[in-house]
Amino acid sequence: MKKHIVLVAAALAVSGAAVAQQPLKPEEAIKYRQAGYAYMGWSMGKIKANLEGTYNKEQVVAAANTIAAIANSGMGALYVPGSDKEVNGVKTRVKPEFFQKQQEVGKLAMAFNKEANELARVAATGDVAAVKAQFGKVGGTCKACHDDFRMKD
Amino acid sequence: MKKHIVLVAAALAVSGAAVAQQPLKPEEAIKYRQAGYAYMGWSMGKIKANLEGTYNKEQVVAAANTIAAIANSGMGALYVPGSDKEVNGVKTRVKPEFFQKQQEVGKLAMAFNKEANELARVAATGDVAAVKAQFGKVGGTCKACHDDFRMKD
Repeated sequence: MKKHIVLVAAALAVSGAAVAQQPLKPEEAIKYRQAGYAYMGWSMGKIKANLEGTYNKEQVVAAANTIAAIANSGMGALYVPGSDKEVNGVKTRVKPEFFQKQQEVGKLAMAFNKEANELARVAATGDVAAVKAQFGKVGGTCKACHDDFRMKD
Repeated sequence: MKKHIVLVAAALAVSGAAVAQQPLKPEEAIKYRQAGYAYMGWSMGKIKANLEGTYNKEQVVAAANTIAAIANSGMGALYVPGSDKEVNGVKTRVKPEFFQKQQEVGKLAMAFNKEANELARVAATGDVAAVKAQFGKVGGTCKACHDDFRMKD
């Protein structure tokens, strides 16, 4: 729970102690957050492939642990002022509303963290049906944020 | 140890079951591996900032867990055939030798994984001096691979 509060606090403050000493440029922050989402996307894809094909528990555990670790890493600190739109040639699909509706963003972030941590827990049990169900819940929290706060392609 | 073997096996095979069902295009593989390295880079920077400034145990733990999870995620599968040079506009700084000196790459990958996992373990103890020492070891394994297998800027 503490992690969630920290994440939300970071999201709300749109800054964070993490970068106090070496302030991130907006374009760097955009690149790092996109890197985090991309790596989680690859990890989600691997879990999906395992659920649809031959199930390799170790691979699913590694992917789920990666998603959970990134979810817990304080991505809120990557939404620095000035990173709400393209800057120095680095594009972003974040909607301006992300920076305005802080309570809503905080709720979505907490839901994602909760389900991602639960996926890591369930993956470790090796219960494929439970992983499948929990994978769907994580995907749902991804989609909820994309629907509200990410521009379409 | 099993994780290391899997990583090395993946590095050696330069393929991997992960992508059996949805083969990654070389340009996708390059983007994903760069995303992983970028996110680890941000995490390393956060730990450095904590060691040089005010130490926040929770933040260091989160960053160290992220580095370890990505290290354990089987990045070897992202070195697919055709990803050894720029492809479809996606650049890479990997040297061709990476794909040839498989034993050397395997050793470096194992060393990095070992030190990254140890950093996560040490971070959880909150022993700042130990974190500092172990952080240096992780950085050393990053540098060892960069020196041998990454082109200069």
